[in-house]
Amino acid sequence: MTQQFEIPEQQWAQVVEKKGGPVVFKQIPVQKPGPDEVLINVKYSGVCHTDLHAMKGDWPLDTKLPLVGGHEGAGVVVAKGELVSEVEIGDYAGIKWLNGSCLACSFCMQADEPLCPHALLSGYTVDGSFQQYAIAKAAHVAKIPKECDLEAVAPVLCAGITVYKGLKESGARPGQWVAIVGAGGGLGSMAIQYANAMGLHAIAIDGGEEKGKNCKELGAKAYVDFTQTKDLVADVKAATPEGLGPHAVILLAVSEKPFHQAVDYVRARGTIICIGLPAGAYFKAPVFDTVIRMITIKGSYVGNRQDTQEALDFFARGLVKVPIKTVGLSKLQEVYDLMEEGKIVGRYVVDTSK
Amino acid sequence: MTQQFEIPEQQWAQVVEKKGGPVVFKQIPVQKPGPDEVLINVKYSGVCHTDLHAMKGDWPLDTKLPLVGGHEGAGVVVAKGELVSEVEIGDYAGIKWLNGSCLACSFCMQADEPLCPHALLSGYTVDGSFQQYAIAKAAHVAKIPKECDLEAVAPVLCAGITVYKGLKESGARPGQWVAIVGAGGGLGSMAIQYANAMGLHAIAIDGGEEKGKNCKELGAKAYVDFTQTKDLVADVKAATPEGLGPHAVILLAVSEKPFHQAVDYVRARGTIICIGLPAGAYFKAPVFDTVIRMITIKGSYVGNRQDTQEALDFFARGLVKVPIKTVGLSKLQEVYDLMEEGKIVGRYVVDTSK
Amino acid sequence: MTQQFEIPEQQWAQVVEKKGGPVVFKQIPVQKPGPDEVLINVKYSGVCHTDLHAMKGDWPLDTKLPLVGGHEGAGVVVAKGELVSEVEIGDYAGIKWLNGSCLACSFCMQADEPLCPHALLSGYTVDGSFQQYAIAKAAHVAKIPKECDLEAVAPVLCAGITVYKGLKESGARPGQWVAIVGAGGGLGSMAIQYANAMGLHAIAIDGGEEKGKNCKELGAKAYVDFTQTKDLVADVKAATPEGLGPHAVILLAVSEKPFHQAVDYVRARGTIICIGLPAGAYFKAPVFDTVIRMITIKGSYVGNRQDTQEALDFFARGLVKVPIKTVGLSKLQEVYDLMEEGKIVGRYVVDTSK
Amino acid sequence: MTQQFEIPEQQWAQVVEKKGGPVVFKQIPVQKPGPDEVLINVKYSGVCHTDLHAMKGDWPLDTKLPLVGGHEGAGVVVAKGELVSEVEIGDYAGIKWLNGSCLACSFCMQADEPLCPHALLSGYTVDGSFQQYAIAKAAHVAKIPKECDLEAVAPVLCAGITVYKGLKESGARPGQWVAIVGAGGGLGSMAIQYANAMGLHAIAIDGGEEKGKNCKELGAKAYVDFTQTKDLVADVKAATPEGLGPHAVILLAVSEKPFHQAVDYVRARGTIICIGLPAGAYFKAPVFDTVIRMITIKGSYVGNRQDTQEALDFFARGLVKVPIKTVGLSKLQEVYDLMEEGKIVGRYVVDTSK
Repeated sequence: MTQQFEIPEQQWAQVVEKKGGPVVFKQIPVQKPGPDEVLINVKYSGVCHTDLHAMKGDWPLDTKLPLVGGHEGAGVVVAKGELVSEVEIGDYAGIKWLNGSCLACSFCMQADEPLCPHALLSGYTVDGSFQQYAIAKAAHVAKIPKECDLEAVAPVLCAGITVYKGLKESGARPGQWVAIVGAGGGLGSMAIQYANAMGLHAIAIDGGEEKGKNCKELGAKAYVDFTQTKDLVADVKAATPEGLGPHAVILLAVSEKPFHQAVDYVRARGTIICIGLPAGAYFKAPVFDTVIRMITIKGSYVGNRQDTQEALDFFARGLVKVPIKTVGLSKLQEVYDLMEEGKIVGRYVVDTSK
Repeated sequence: MTQQFEIPEQQWAQVVEKKGGPVVFKQIPVQKPGPDEVLINVKYSGVCHTDLHAMKGDWPLDTKLPLVGGHEGAGVVVAKGELVSEVEIGDYAGIKWLNGSCLACSFCMQADEPLCPHALLSGYTVDGSFQQYAIAKAAHVAKIPKECDLEAVAPVLCAGITVYKGLKESGARPGQWVAIVGAGGGLGSMAIQYANAMGLHAIAIDGGEEKGKNCKELGAKAYVDFTQTKDLVADVKAATPEGLGPHAVILLAVSEKPFHQAVDYVRARGTIICIGLPAGAYFKAPVFDTVIRMITIKGSYVGNRQDTQEALDFFARGLVKVPIKTVGLSKLQEVYDLMEEGKIVGRYVVDTSK
Repeated sequence: MTQQFEIPEQQWAQVVEKKGGPVVFKQIPVQKPGPDEVLINVKYSGVCHTDLHAMKGDWPLDTKLPLVGGHEGAGVVVAKGELVSEVEIGDYAGIKWLNGSCLACSFCMQADEPLCPHALLSGYTVDGSFQQYAIAKAAHVAKIPKECDLEAVAPVLCAGITVYKGLKESGARPGQWVAIVGAGGGLGSMAIQYANAMGLHAIAIDGGEEKGKNCKELGAKAYVDFTQTKDLVADVKAATPEGLGPHAVILLAVSEKPFHQAVDYVRARGTIICIGLPAGAYFKAPVFDTVIRMITIKGSYVGNRQDTQEALDFFARGLVKVPIKTVGLSKLQEVYDLMEEGKIVGRYVVDTSK
Repeated sequence: MTQQFEIPEQQWAQVVEKKGGPVVFKQIPVQKPGPDEVLINVKYSGVCHTDLHAMKGDWPLDTKLPLVGGHEGAGVVVAKGELVSEVEIGDYAGIKWLNGSCLACSFCMQADEPLCPHALLSGYTVDGSFQQYAIAKAAHVAKIPKECDLEAVAPVLCAGITVYKGLKESGARPGQWVAIVGAGGGLGSMAIQYANAMGLHAIAIDGGEEKGKNCKELGAKAYVDFTQTKDLVADVKAATPEGLGPHAVILLAVSEKPFHQAVDYVRARGTIICIGLPAGAYFKAPVFDTVIRMITIKGSYVGNRQDTQEALDFFARGLVKVPIKTVGLSKLQEVYDLMEEGKIVGRYVVDTSK
């Protein structure tokens, strides 16, 4: 027998009412799912830098307005449209950045849904997970295994998938070496763990003793402290067999300097994966070295649906743990304020019941 | 019965005696091959921009001095060392950029000989093909099929291999679209032909009506003239199905502008291959677009031994023709002078008998 | 303005009313498309061996009953459901073997829709193209370019896609060699042309002088006549450079003998693609040779949606021509009779207006 | 300063003097390395089934006679030829199955040295490691890290490399499932450990409770006991997510039955890797299932040089342990006798000093 849920007409949400914010905590109506959609009772939602960009409206792409942000929502399916057969009422499901896509364009046909020109983006072009009940295309919701804790899994839905995808796109094989730039942050700590689970050897790069200790505990084989080293390039290379440099580099904190350095220390034929999205940034690399050493530089965006399930599977098996701090949904603006001040370590999660 | 050749003690060569040049046409001794080497009677040699850089010494890597340049030498094997079994006296063989490599390092073991830290470079770190008799490691000489014309095949040994390798590295599959930037030049005209032979659709990008006519005759599906277009990015995209842009871009004429443009018109998930090596150049790309559209930027150097044989095979089957102009080896300095003045169209070949 | 079509209530169809057949030509109602479906006015439909198997019910998988067969239907979209945005009324569209799939299982998420456990099969588990108006899931219809002739394109929708997919799955690269076993038949003649368009060198294997002439005209580089050769394995190898054998083999006519032979002549590290589906057949190969020579044997089914568009694109560009013979839909049983007698060369197409 | 070793004129060896054996323990001269060769003072050598086949001469390929067998020899480089720069006197090095290859044919050029038509096979076509001093081509010796124990590493040189290569060839990615058939044996126990180190989930298949316990301790996620199960296919599938079956199967104990079963339980699009080489065996698979489910069957031979170094690296990092039993070289015939009787569990190693 299918489970039944009582669905209220009104719900609490955090709403961006005008470009620049702030978010307003208020009651709004609960939507009804279309034929190919589900309604998810969001229990917890991670808070990502992208959400801050969405509120501020400082990215090249316009958001919907008024907007309910959020794209790391973990919850329970409480209603579904008539065409939906892939998820059931009562299933655990996740709202992720990609809320929906056409599933029929040349990108969707090749499993590159994130590149679909008709993609719907949660908390950006459609309402997201900073509300108690959110809509998503059934074919796109993350299928969260029942053994997962919804609070702990929330940040995997964007941060986890993104770093996992980056590692996958790097082409690094088990036994090879990967440098993680910005390894001490929220994404970085997940990247170290995914790398370990994938049989890779991680070299953590970040600043400060505290972060180094943390990276080592998570399984990094080496730590290079950019605040202490006299020659970062030499140190990274020295951490790898024969000093040839890592096979891949995951750039979580892109700015011009780390990029230059990555070209210098990555192994010949190696791959540098760009993930971070600082507003207005450019990267710059010397043509001669890039050609002569056959280096690849590759942008990696969020994962597709298959990547999502794979990233969740590693989490469900206990191979990846995410350090989170949970507050009520009503406190979202305070989280944004901390974020603006650069005071956040790890990942904030909001509880929609508070 | 093995053929026998009479080998003189002295030969004519063009020698760079000091950094900056010029080349001096003079007689020098013929060398004897070591146990794993062959001696090739060079009949023709192509002249490449790299040879000019070698003479001038303006690249970050030092050359041998005195130096015999040249790395597109086509000739006949006239002597070989005791360990050599892969080539026979009388075989046609080619001297290419990679004169030898260790065959045992981690790059050589993975068929990336051009990345070998112990690589010997013809006409750069060892003497090359601007002489009548040149030495090469037997395992590295290009095996030229007997049906080939040695004069016509010479430029394939570097220019042909390089563009073929670039197309291969791009990952473009038959039926897909590739933009060739600098399609009207010597490398470009070969790139169009290799693209056709590989089942790719080429979009030629260059300047001027004459070049456009030539590119179309060689088989380009579209030509975009940067001297005439009002919106190069729009025009390149318009030439592809659904306006999504080409799957790959081959940058033969790297400078900052074409690179920026390539990021804009390449298809999402597409690959930009950098081949050209302008002294001191940097490329620069917006991080946001590169990440969101999952673009790959990749340096491609010369081909490995397998690429060499494949590139030669396309030539031997008549699928690639190279427009050459032949002069005597004694006229090499004049060719360099024209090159410096930017007056060369197509490829010069020197005849070592003159 | 969207085009409007008058849709009748009744239509002509060929119906299998009981397992074993025959087909009955009669009037049946026209269906209405669901929210994610389209109604296609089928103009022409190819006739495939699979259709005969469906009527006879001799495959391990049960068909729907009563059944309208057919899965190579080319026509015009005349109606569509409310959720459909990827195709428009008036578009040319094709009904192919895969009528629909869930688009959400682990196979669909990786672009392997043909492996979806919930796949709907045209003319097998759902009604197909041997009727004037057929239903298909919008996300799965083949998008046929307007410049195509609907009569000529029909057989591409299964036969063409299947051989193209097989060539793609073989991993053979431009410039490599592929043996096509059964090259003289309908699929074989398309395989030769696709191989050419993909830059591959085809070795045609079949029986008889007539077929040899035909294969050569279509572009095969060599023809091996199994009715004449004294040593088929030696002859196939002799047709390839250095006698190493072809890089890939496409087995269109699978029976035990050709399979054994393929293992013997395929190049070490080569791939043998099985496509044909003779009822109850097994293949058998010596373990020693398969291991020592690192041979791959791979089953290839129909293409996914992306393969479909690629195969159609080669056709639309005039690179593949299909020899067809057209009769009225009312004559379908006669075509099946000829098929049973093994008297068909090339491909039959039925015209639904007759 | 380079280390210096005193090299005797005579040494102890086990010699096969005629086809069928037995081995004769006697003194023979120590050879001198050619210009591209090294002389290795073998300390320990693993004993493989192939060595027994070589003595008996029951494989399709003839051995050299008289023959010193052995191809898992771990020792120290004590002399080298004039052209050798890739290894130094005093280095640890391993004699593996592939003693040498031409390094210049189309297989060697693509890093498929094991497929070289001119390959030299240790203990088969050239003398191997069942002697105190053995010759090998310098470019082919395994480079054994100094931190390795030569006794423990010996069986990695063939058994370890072979199972690692098989796992690599399967294409299984971290997080995916692999069934290992014959998991309880010597190769199987290494395969489980390599699978773990590569981030794969292993399902062990073998017979008996004891083996099951062992497999689980080594890290297998599930064990299917073919002596107990009522439905092996169902049990293997049940061990995988959604019951879809493992992504890959490693067949270490090939016989017809396991092969049939593997086709039934492997996931659609999955890969079955054949490694075992029972004399005269054939495998047989239903064409229908292989095609419809797009299954790949692939032979995997020994690794190339790069695979060798990667397999050793996993060992050196302590991720793979091999259960060995060591006896003196003089006892080799007794090991063969046990092997013939099927009484060997794990791997025998001979100590050349005894």
